[in-house]
Amino acid sequence: MKKLLNDPRRFVADALAGFAEAHADIVRVQSSPVFVTRLRMSAGKVGVVSGGGSGHEPLHVGFVGHGMLDAAAPGEIFTSPTPDPILAATREAHQGAGVLYLVKNYTGDVLNFETAAELAAMEGIAVRTVVIDDDVAVQNSEFTAGRRGVAGTVLIEKIVGAAAERGDGLDALADLATRLTASVRSIGVAIGAPTVPHSGKQSFELAPDEIEFGIGIHGERGRARVGMAPADELADRALEAVLDDIPREGERTIVLVNGMGATPPAELYVVYRRIAERLRGIGAHIERSLVGSYVTSLDMAGFSVSLLSVDDELLSLWDAPVRTAALRWGM
Amino acid sequence: MKKLLNDPRRFVADALAGFAEAHADIVRVQSSPVFVTRLRMSAGKVGVVSGGGSGHEPLHVGFVGHGMLDAAAPGEIFTSPTPDPILAATREAHQGAGVLYLVKNYTGDVLNFETAAELAAMEGIAVRTVVIDDDVAVQNSEFTAGRRGVAGTVLIEKIVGAAAERGDGLDALADLATRLTASVRSIGVAIGAPTVPHSGKQSFELAPDEIEFGIGIHGERGRARVGMAPADELADRALEAVLDDIPREGERTIVLVNGMGATPPAELYVVYRRIAERLRGIGAHIERSLVGSYVTSLDMAGFSVSLLSVDDELLSLWDAPVRTAALRWGM
Repeated sequence: MKKLLNDPRRFVADALAGFAEAHADIVRVQSSPVFVTRLRMSAGKVGVVSGGGSGHEPLHVGFVGHGMLDAAAPGEIFTSPTPDPILAATREAHQGAGVLYLVKNYTGDVLNFETAAELAAMEGIAVRTVVIDDDVAVQNSEFTAGRRGVAGTVLIEKIVGAAAERGDGLDALADLATRLTASVRSIGVAIGAPTVPHSGKQSFELAPDEIEFGIGIHGERGRARVGMAPADELADRALEAVLDDIPREGERTIVLVNGMGATPPAELYVVYRRIAERLRGIGAHIERSLVGSYVTSLDMAGFSVSLLSVDDELLSLWDAPVRTAALRWGM
Repeated sequence: MKKLLNDPRRFVADALAGFAEAHADIVRVQSSPVFVTRLRMSAGKVGVVSGGGSGHEPLHVGFVGHGMLDAAAPGEIFTSPTPDPILAATREAHQGAGVLYLVKNYTGDVLNFETAAELAAMEGIAVRTVVIDDDVAVQNSEFTAGRRGVAGTVLIEKIVGAAAERGDGLDALADLATRLTASVRSIGVAIGAPTVPHSGKQSFELAPDEIEFGIGIHGERGRARVGMAPADELADRALEAVLDDIPREGERTIVLVNGMGATPPAELYVVYRRIAERLRGIGAHIERSLVGSYVTSLDMAGFSVSLLSVDDELLSLWDAPVRTAALRWGM
């Protein structure tokens, strides 16, 4: 295993320490328990909190800041955070108007956020939870009852974060997040496996001409192990899988072409070119796009595609100023 | 070779097409000859133009936009652009106040930008050129007389771009770029080799426990092939090489910890943590930092460290609004 780390047991802690130092103008990283908050909370605003296993950076800690998340609880690599840091993050994010949890659908995450919500309720903090399950690849998987939550999460965190920033109430935000979850769909393709620091071994083995279609963000099996193909063909297959689930003919959409961690920008733009071409072909309008590595799986190589249908209101929330470590515009 | 591409001969063209589509609100990509300009030029402003071989994205095309570059000429993979696209980019960037070339020190780039400058002069366009040679690893190399230009280029493009945007004249900008070049120093470390699409083979071979210390951004040999070590040790050695060249005790600095293309964010933050700790130890002040993959080498794994000393004026130029595909704040 060749990775830029010291002791694998210190990997998450070291990375968070560097993250805290690099972005001290945006976030604060707390220890015991470990969670990340934006530097300045907005009084009276609903707190938006997320979290989950580490190894998917910049998700979620890189999206803490003005206009997106108020706090995030990162677990160990591919490991759900316990209720303790989630509860601590909740207390800080609660500014009198309650807290919304955005939770990717993995059994551990769902359970631990549920427990934290119960504990928060006992302290008088109103919590609503929306579970994100945007991955069309499989109906159930190793860590999941139902579909997995993957890269579409970023789109939801941005839009819901903007709505919270403009002052929407807890129920309205939960409704918005639910509506977005119903509309966003994703699928991922791995052309190279990640190596988990603790084991030092690749999560799965691919032959030189093999890829995993429908990969999960922890290296979980997808729909099929198939042959490597030109980028346009992979993009087509990914897009078709997403469109099979929700057709987008004539729809206005936001498109995310996401890198899995070890895939350089030029390759992602090759994929995006084809996705855009095909969406035009069915009369869909790409209103906004994101191309980059936003929800990674350690050093996995590959990409995912996420589509979200939008209207004028959602677009204005998307365009609203945001200032986080990984997504920033308008300020 | 497993890459997200179609025909290797179409790789750069496909990636640029996707880039153009994804960032149509910021850039325009011209074909025959191929170059990239910002969407709206500022009348009367000095044009700032860069370019070089592709495969280093987001450098340079991802830094075209308000407050940074006016145009960039991307060559084929690791191949200098010819004078033709550089000249075409120069004509568009020239808004009556002349054009500044920021050129990384590689023989092909230097020659082709020189030829373009001569052709531009014949058309009455005043051009000044500053050659960037921030890599302390080696004094000369395969493609270079003198030191190579590497990731420090981003810091120069940002600061000089901001000075051009505020209205500085051509000579003042050339002086500023020269002063920055004298201050910025970098070194790179590869823990995994890149694969060039045309050959389908890795640029060099590393044993499982080997790294290349002082790697070039085209996979050129560095100072030494040495054993893999913990991240803190690699960070220490890289920082020492940079500080041996210019000590920074008590200096105010901007620090760039740059990913080489296949290295995920968490590993870069592990490196940054140590760099920050060591700089504090010598009484240097990190005024600003950038941690991410800004100057890549296709899918090479590893990092580079760049340091630039700054004062209040340079910091205000750094903080000035910028809106490019890859670097954006304040707007």
